[in-house]
Amino acid sequence: MIVETPTRAPGGTLAIVGLGPGPAEWLTPEASQLLDDATDLIGYAPYVARVPERPGLRRHGSDNRVELDRARHALTLAMDGRRVAVVSGGDPGIFAMAAAVFEAIESGEARWRDLPIRVAPGVSAMQAAAARLGAPLGHDFCVMSLSDNLKPWSLIERRLRAVAAGDFVLALYNPASMARPTQLADAFALLRSCKDGRTPVAFARAVGRPGESITLATLRDADAALADMSTLVLIGSSETRMVPRADGSSWLLTPRHHGVNP
Amino acid sequence: MIVETPTRAPGGTLAIVGLGPGPAEWLTPEASQLLDDATDLIGYAPYVARVPERPGLRRHGSDNRVELDRARHALTLAMDGRRVAVVSGGDPGIFAMAAAVFEAIESGEARWRDLPIRVAPGVSAMQAAAARLGAPLGHDFCVMSLSDNLKPWSLIERRLRAVAAGDFVLALYNPASMARPTQLADAFALLRSCKDGRTPVAFARAVGRPGESITLATLRDADAALADMSTLVLIGSSETRMVPRADGSSWLLTPRHHGVNP
Repeated sequence: MIVETPTRAPGGTLAIVGLGPGPAEWLTPEASQLLDDATDLIGYAPYVARVPERPGLRRHGSDNRVELDRARHALTLAMDGRRVAVVSGGDPGIFAMAAAVFEAIESGEARWRDLPIRVAPGVSAMQAAAARLGAPLGHDFCVMSLSDNLKPWSLIERRLRAVAAGDFVLALYNPASMARPTQLADAFALLRSCKDGRTPVAFARAVGRPGESITLATLRDADAALADMSTLVLIGSSETRMVPRADGSSWLLTPRHHGVNP
Repeated sequence: MIVETPTRAPGGTLAIVGLGPGPAEWLTPEASQLLDDATDLIGYAPYVARVPERPGLRRHGSDNRVELDRARHALTLAMDGRRVAVVSGGDPGIFAMAAAVFEAIESGEARWRDLPIRVAPGVSAMQAAAARLGAPLGHDFCVMSLSDNLKPWSLIERRLRAVAAGDFVLALYNPASMARPTQLADAFALLRSCKDGRTPVAFARAVGRPGESITLATLRDADAALADMSTLVLIGSSETRMVPRADGSSWLLTPRHHGVNP
């Protein structure tokens, strides 16, 4: 008679859940349901704090720099039979926890690959910013993180040059931090050397949250000091322009056509 | 005594609403509320058909090739005092109706710039595809439409070369249509000339809708015939790889780091 050692407690699941930019109106019903079903909540403490406390829900908040440890903790809890929700702001697939979880699986225990894992997408910061601005992402665009914690600055420069060579609109995440105060200024300087100075630039700060603000500028005079870690920076293509409104503000538009008449 | 001619009927509003990829679990509460409040629904007929009929809601479905006419119709109805919702699948800001509406405003009547206009973001096809695949968008990426209805093919080639030069992950919308059967094959051929043939490629068809399917391949052997207009095609960077699962399928992962040790 063979007695198998159980390798995984029954019922364990892992959901990687996008909370969106902040307000409840941007939280998908799927994400709400997964949060309601969870026994354990894991994530960067400010995101965990967004989910209301309730009996039976264990909350495991952590620092922002320990994504891989956090992912391994979540996988271990799911193996123990818990229903774990790993939470990210925005979309977990875009500069957030989904990659960390699958990296942990790739380098971790073989039996983790057996777990039921579900990723629940969310509204990402660039989409919230674009919604407030009008239609800046109306044509081809690129999405970059300006953090060089996990890639060399030389790669960021190479990619910024490629974005300019392709005349893409660019959405920049993580444009500034205490540890990297000059990255965005350096990026603007590089882009000024290969793009028109009149290119529109938008600083969209904390969209959907307290302190929301939108500032429009041109690449020539864009001030990197306007960005903090809550800011999404959008830089136009050669077709991006401002559409003045009656109240003196402007929408930002990248039309659907480029180099041909509509 | 001066009698002003009223230029806009009171109460008119325009919402540009993202329906997400299809299922109700991916429709934001904001979008649901705007659809509930609308008096008039405007959009490509299959998207209008997704919204349930109810008393007091007029539905204006149209063909897919008349975005600008549709936008002008919506603006005219809003000027007449209607609460208009222009609906798009996915996110209206990403290859959808938001750009068409602001183009119509830019070239239209000055008084349209007075209208209260709101854009409600939604889960876009690339996010739904990424959620099913694991974490393919975990690092910098580019987003392109492969349609050359509104831009010359030479620009598409220029951008594909830039994507390869920057070693970005690439999400391709509108990869194929009856009118453009060879575009994706041409794009694959171009990318094979400047990227490793072992680069992972994913075909994510109708994610969240009936007929959903996911197919993984490598750039070397990717068959353009696997894509139709309901397919989102993802092409990896040099860091993107498959993570085999216990059941023989694979997740797709682009790690958060690139060229440095985590």
